[in-house]
Amino acid sequence: MAAKLARVEFWYEFASTYSYPAAMRAGRLAGAAGVELVWRPFLLAPIFGAQGWNDSPFNIYPVKGRYMWRDLARICEADGLALNMPVRFPQNGLKAARLAILGAGESWAPAFTRAVYEANFARQQDIADDGVLAGILQALGLDPLDVVMRAYAPENKAKLKAQSDEAIAKGIFGAPSFVVDGELFWGNDRLEQALAWAQRRGQS
Amino acid sequence: MAAKLARVEFWYEFASTYSYPAAMRAGRLAGAAGVELVWRPFLLAPIFGAQGWNDSPFNIYPVKGRYMWRDLARICEADGLALNMPVRFPQNGLKAARLAILGAGESWAPAFTRAVYEANFARQQDIADDGVLAGILQALGLDPLDVVMRAYAPENKAKLKAQSDEAIAKGIFGAPSFVVDGELFWGNDRLEQALAWAQRRGQS
Repeated sequence: MAAKLARVEFWYEFASTYSYPAAMRAGRLAGAAGVELVWRPFLLAPIFGAQGWNDSPFNIYPVKGRYMWRDLARICEADGLALNMPVRFPQNGLKAARLAILGAGESWAPAFTRAVYEANFARQQDIADDGVLAGILQALGLDPLDVVMRAYAPENKAKLKAQSDEAIAKGIFGAPSFVVDGELFWGNDRLEQALAWAQRRGQS
Repeated sequence: MAAKLARVEFWYEFASTYSYPAAMRAGRLAGAAGVELVWRPFLLAPIFGAQGWNDSPFNIYPVKGRYMWRDLARICEADGLALNMPVRFPQNGLKAARLAILGAGESWAPAFTRAVYEANFARQQDIADDGVLAGILQALGLDPLDVVMRAYAPENKAKLKAQSDEAIAKGIFGAPSFVVDGELFWGNDRLEQALAWAQRRGQS
């Protein structure tokens, strides 16, 4: 029998602060661990909305929000990542998520995802701005007009909706989250644990 | 000049699930790191109440609660700790906290704290039950009647109230939390980082 493929699903939302350091290191760590990483953008707004939140919990609970920014600053410093307060928080990541889910089927999702997080959390750019997104696509050697048209087509929009529904079905309630064969890990600080879990499953 | 003493404050609440693995390893890790650990029991109820919660957020948000129990089970398994669903969740840790804050001034807080967490999360005992608490004190070689009378005296009750107010003043919003010279770390998974922070401060 063939060995099971060690695989981790990386669930992320472009507005999510802790998804930024996760996105910047997940590919590198998965590669080093010999684990396949599946990039799965989704939307948190419907999940938060179902809990009665119409804003980020970090805004609703300011004491927790203050801690989060300080904690994130320590993490970014340790990881060598730039961090500058976004133009607004949370940003609207809907367009970027539609693009990323298209890119996940076309191999450019990882580089696109990292560039969007840098735009949001390092470069203080508006990630809902069509010009910002076009610039990122162009830098990746893609044709922005072609990509955007396909990303905003009904079937791709439906794909993002279905993926966000799947997140709920998998018990996901925050980002980043990692899923290994139905086992859920929540938070940037659980990435190593998720990779180790996948390695053990791959060997069994 | 004398070197600054490397010191970490360990803030915990007896009802808090993640405080259990933290309490079971904090003393050992701090000892190995050469860092002084200050045991600081406090109450989360007033903090949660100020956010409009009259129950644990893990009960208010069941999806998050389900994840927490699974995550805690993985942590306890990795740490070699027994975990059995408490008789109720959250338990009322007021009496135990009054005892622990007395013990913090008398050297028996660490052993007492660990025993209460085991009673709650491993042995399915009611930690608000006077008999359970007396049994723990007795096993530590203490006179339960003497200790309880001093713990429930007005000045010791006031001490716990003041300590819980101090937690709020320090920006603490959950447990366990670690504080190093005003720098806040939240969560069992931040213990190592807090100890490393204290070591660097101690060397500077």
